[in-house]
Amino acid sequence: MAQSPITLRSADFAAWYQDVVLQGDLAEPAEIVKGCMVIKPNGYAIWERLQRELDDRFKATGHKNMYFPLLIPESFLKKEAEHVEGFSPELAVVTIAGGKELEEPYVIRPTSETIIGHFFAKWIQSWRDLPMLVNQWANVIRWELRTRMFLRTTEFLWQEGHTAHSTHEEAQEEVLRMLDIYAEVAEDVMAMPVIKGKKTHSEKFAGALHSYSIEAMMQNGLALQAGTSHDLGQNFGKAFDVKFQSKEGQLDYVWQTSWGVSTRLIGGLVMSHSDDKGLVIPPKLAPVKSVLVPIYRKDDEKGAVLEAAHRMAKDVGAEVDDREGHNPGAKFFHWERRGVPVVLELGPRDLAAGTIVLKRRDTGAKEPIPQSELKTRVDATLDTMQKDLYAAAKQRLKANTVVANSMEEIESILRDVTAEKGGGKFVMAHLKDDAACEVRLKAFKATVRNIPQVDEYDGPGKCIVTGETVDRRVVVAKSY
Amino acid sequence: MAQSPITLRSADFAAWYQDVVLQGDLAEPAEIVKGCMVIKPNGYAIWERLQRELDDRFKATGHKNMYFPLLIPESFLKKEAEHVEGFSPELAVVTIAGGKELEEPYVIRPTSETIIGHFFAKWIQSWRDLPMLVNQWANVIRWELRTRMFLRTTEFLWQEGHTAHSTHEEAQEEVLRMLDIYAEVAEDVMAMPVIKGKKTHSEKFAGALHSYSIEAMMQNGLALQAGTSHDLGQNFGKAFDVKFQSKEGQLDYVWQTSWGVSTRLIGGLVMSHSDDKGLVIPPKLAPVKSVLVPIYRKDDEKGAVLEAAHRMAKDVGAEVDDREGHNPGAKFFHWERRGVPVVLELGPRDLAAGTIVLKRRDTGAKEPIPQSELKTRVDATLDTMQKDLYAAAKQRLKANTVVANSMEEIESILRDVTAEKGGGKFVMAHLKDDAACEVRLKAFKATVRNIPQVDEYDGPGKCIVTGETVDRRVVVAKSY
Repeated sequence: MAQSPITLRSADFAAWYQDVVLQGDLAEPAEIVKGCMVIKPNGYAIWERLQRELDDRFKATGHKNMYFPLLIPESFLKKEAEHVEGFSPELAVVTIAGGKELEEPYVIRPTSETIIGHFFAKWIQSWRDLPMLVNQWANVIRWELRTRMFLRTTEFLWQEGHTAHSTHEEAQEEVLRMLDIYAEVAEDVMAMPVIKGKKTHSEKFAGALHSYSIEAMMQNGLALQAGTSHDLGQNFGKAFDVKFQSKEGQLDYVWQTSWGVSTRLIGGLVMSHSDDKGLVIPPKLAPVKSVLVPIYRKDDEKGAVLEAAHRMAKDVGAEVDDREGHNPGAKFFHWERRGVPVVLELGPRDLAAGTIVLKRRDTGAKEPIPQSELKTRVDATLDTMQKDLYAAAKQRLKANTVVANSMEEIESILRDVTAEKGGGKFVMAHLKDDAACEVRLKAFKATVRNIPQVDEYDGPGKCIVTGETVDRRVVVAKSY
Repeated sequence: MAQSPITLRSADFAAWYQDVVLQGDLAEPAEIVKGCMVIKPNGYAIWERLQRELDDRFKATGHKNMYFPLLIPESFLKKEAEHVEGFSPELAVVTIAGGKELEEPYVIRPTSETIIGHFFAKWIQSWRDLPMLVNQWANVIRWELRTRMFLRTTEFLWQEGHTAHSTHEEAQEEVLRMLDIYAEVAEDVMAMPVIKGKKTHSEKFAGALHSYSIEAMMQNGLALQAGTSHDLGQNFGKAFDVKFQSKEGQLDYVWQTSWGVSTRLIGGLVMSHSDDKGLVIPPKLAPVKSVLVPIYRKDDEKGAVLEAAHRMAKDVGAEVDDREGHNPGAKFFHWERRGVPVVLELGPRDLAAGTIVLKRRDTGAKEPIPQSELKTRVDATLDTMQKDLYAAAKQRLKANTVVANSMEEIESILRDVTAEKGGGKFVMAHLKDDAACEVRLKAFKATVRNIPQVDEYDGPGKCIVTGETVDRRVVVAKSY
């Protein structure tokens, strides 16, 4: 038997990830453009499904899609002090255009708060113009030193929501509404359980008052920040002079939010469900839900098998893999690596017996079922698989979340964890939201992932660094 | 009565166009980024509908979506001589990234033949890998001197198809298949009649063997190139060393195609159907097909009218404009300018009479109809309007297409035509596919738009410049 093209998770989780992405036809590195990737057909099709799930929810909550320029005048970024400090090191700068040196360079958007702030100032005069609820689907560039496909790439695809409100309270509601939508898509569609919570001040978005995130646990126990939602306060309103007249006739700055998820979600998907055989895709996201592989040895069997295969596949919405020049074994591997949830096999013996073989991707379970029950059984299998993947991921999250009551304890749990070797945990600890406390975690490369919205532990306690009382335990982990 | 915010077509067609785009909530200039625009909600929603119509057809013909990097190493463009010559003057160049001067600058893609050629060379080894049928939805940048919203902007959104084949014949079939799909979407969905044909050699895509286009006539008689499909021959195959082993075991370069349409289509849509009152959108593309405006003077009428309005709107899939603080007249203008095909009015008198008023955007016709027939009548109106818009545009194309048999005659027809004043024609003339002949048209700023696929005129004739026999008349016009 040929060696598997996929490294075992237990041998090197990071190499396994790269292999699954390549073999699953999700992406490949674009080595000639630093830190970029090509998103391949299976990866892009998953992204399209994620886009649809998200976009439908954005529209249902009153947001409108718009499109703003890719290029932003360099001076715009400097208008918000924290923002420019956060993004300056990562900018790609256009200095020449149309054959001439530009008087003012443009940066390629790393995010669009600044340029959208500029237009909000033009569009918003009165409380009647509020709330303004905008979303943009776009590419952005952040020049990163260490990149990994989907998880951190120089260019990535994302959506960025940008909203303006007349009160802080309304903006805060928006921030949490969008965080809920992200959590819903992660859990219900991607089958990836997440912890919703607030980032600490030292981990918040550059320019925000408060940031919120959803954090998922990968199979190696590392955390993945899968989506963020920011309460921008009046920071960008003041930087871009976005003022409105209130109902009472007073001028005030708008309260803004921004929120985004990106192609990074696909990395999270891979590291939540896939196995040593390759990609596993939850049925709700699978571009192809089922494939039927017809099997025949002799030419006189071919006609009857193919005819029945196409007929049954049509009933159940399956693709028929009737490619010539590939044997059934190669076809099974092909679809397995691509994460197709259900593979059906139909041969002459099945035809005679009135059966068809159903194989489920996640468990590998394989059984002949009556042809008459095909549609019911495929639908039920897809449904069960979606639930089982979520339950398994939830169980793993639970099993790998531990409580610690001292910095030494956290260090002993997380010190030797790496993306390659795995063994990561979510460590729940009482720790003050203070850079001086968090710096202690940096010694072993851990961070506070977030302060959970819902406290599932023991409520207030003493900070393990300062001894001051804090509200609840925070999530400490190594992360991507 | 307040002055209309929309310039009359007859006064200044170019100003009218700009006004319709602004008032229709389609786009506005992003003056702080040279030649760019912001695509606003109504414009982006139309683009989403166009994307769906196109994407469904691309997938149905076997194409897969992928995504390639925005940035292309500058050296890549130089590999195909004509290509670099065509695009060099329009490039935006990134020279600084991550705080450092780059050793090799990147250009922002003006189109992706080069970077996709690079990957085709990695992915294609054998005839078994062919055809390779790829499409990308993306933004591109071409530094333009004179820009007009949608029609010519520095950054625009588009799709670019890129395919590789084992024979020239198969590639040629692909080129024409995609041209047909573009024509189908233009005519059946956008209600915009087009002439399919081949570009002359001097007007073809930089790097192609042959280019094909669909050309539409705007209301001012100018031509708009609305989509192109290119037979790239083996030019990029040779430049990027994309070789495959044929069934017979021989090595050969692949035959490639590329094809694209962009947000320019929205400009074509505006200039095909809109009128002095603002935007007109063909029903098949309209993001909102019908709006119901409830009318009541006194508060005691309000409850019954709103209740009935929401009930009827639900039946017919209409939006209810129940905004407070806007009178019905303002609402009618609002939806008229945004091009909503059908506006319904419902007031207390209608309630008493069991009627509802239906107003059709293109003709302005307004009539009370029985409430019981609402759905049938709205559907029928949308259907008729779609057909009528196409018929009117087709009739205009016909009425403004003329035959000419000398260069002087063409000049006298086209000399004084401008985008502002209008009066443009499509002039059918026998003219050789030769830059030396076409240069004569440049004197009065006309070009050969294309050599029609179907000859609807008098077959072969003598070239009006050289006297040599040419196959058929070509389309000469002023254009965007």
